[in-house]
Amino acid sequence: MSEGQPHQHSYIANRTKDDYLKRLRRIEGQVRGLQRMVEEEQYCIDILTQVSAVTKALQSVALGLLDEHMAHCVVDAAREGGAEADVKLKEASDAIARLVRS
Amino acid sequence: MSEGQPHQHSYIANRTKDDYLKRLRRIEGQVRGLQRMVEEEQYCIDILTQVSAVTKALQSVALGLLDEHMAHCVVDAAREGGAEADVKLKEASDAIARLVRS
Amino acid sequence: MSEGQPHQHSYIANRTKDDYLKRLRRIEGQVRGLQRMVEEEQYCIDILTQVSAVTKALQSVALGLLDEHMAHCVVDAAREGGAEADVKLKEASDAIARLVRS
Amino acid sequence: MSEGQPHQHSYIANRTKDDYLKRLRRIEGQVRGLQRMVEEEQYCIDILTQVSAVTKALQSVALGLLDEHMAHCVVDAAREGGAEADVKLKEASDAIARLVRS
Repeated sequence: MSEGQPHQHSYIANRTKDDYLKRLRRIEGQVRGLQRMVEEEQYCIDILTQVSAVTKALQSVALGLLDEHMAHCVVDAAREGGAEADVKLKEASDAIARLVRS
Repeated sequence: MSEGQPHQHSYIANRTKDDYLKRLRRIEGQVRGLQRMVEEEQYCIDILTQVSAVTKALQSVALGLLDEHMAHCVVDAAREGGAEADVKLKEASDAIARLVRS
Repeated sequence: MSEGQPHQHSYIANRTKDDYLKRLRRIEGQVRGLQRMVEEEQYCIDILTQVSAVTKALQSVALGLLDEHMAHCVVDAAREGGAEADVKLKEASDAIARLVRS
Repeated sequence: MSEGQPHQHSYIANRTKDDYLKRLRRIEGQVRGLQRMVEEEQYCIDILTQVSAVTKALQSVALGLLDEHMAHCVVDAAREGGAEADVKLKEASDAIARLVRS
């Protein structure tokens, strides 16, 4: 993690960034909705349906971010070539494997 | 959804319910963490790693809830038999299919 | 595995059994098709599309078998109750977790 | 599909190609094993365990092929740039989405 160095990966256009933030806030709201459903002991199947919806929304965010990453970081590294290109490809490939397996 | 009728599906023991609420609050915190990561334009691969972690945590909550549901609602319906048992099995089977495909 | 004791789990009606065999033979044919595609060095994206199709077909077979299993073995065990019911529920729940995570 | 034009995507080294063919033949054998298990009405949970194993093996083949594709076709297109790079990125991104969702 590069938490100490914010603002350095400006691969996301501002418009797109706002869109991701909006989607993540909606997902946060859905997770709070899940807490309320459990709190109120709503019907289990309804809770599971909602969990599937949140999972799909998260997957969709991940696939979008991955697209941006490939279109910018991976493509740039590919053009520069050398070891950095290999590192970026390996990173992307590991991230894809984690998404496919999760 | 049965939002107007809370407190009727007491299939979750109180201890377990607190555990689910704790896990869902941690997931909510992780989703807020994702917003901060996007806000600060942290490295895309780090964000994707975190999305995979949240997805796995949600899946684990879903599998736990499904277990409770099968051990209580489905088993009870199976014992009573009749159309209700078929309805419960169909519901559970649809929920499982949504989880497998999401 | 209970390979030495065939014919003991007659939870699948003959008509359904033929249907599963037909689907599995089609999947076998698709896997041979994948070999041919790799052999002929066909376009990678086309091969990946075909792998996704085979994975979906296998998932669908698994969900169908799980339904039969729950409607027969799990329901029967639930009716009999006791330790056997718990064992069957645990087995089903582990199988579901493997499907969700694979 | 480009079935009429074999031998044109030599992105896979021969050693790697043999490795993929070996893995796909093993998967074919596993699918035949599944047919035998259904034929002999073996225990449903054992069949499901085997289906999960086949699904994982197929996923692993897909992730490997995707790596090769990105390291060759996508990187080459990125270097050439232009519309072709966008097409290759879109194709790869769609294939990844299909894998994640299947």
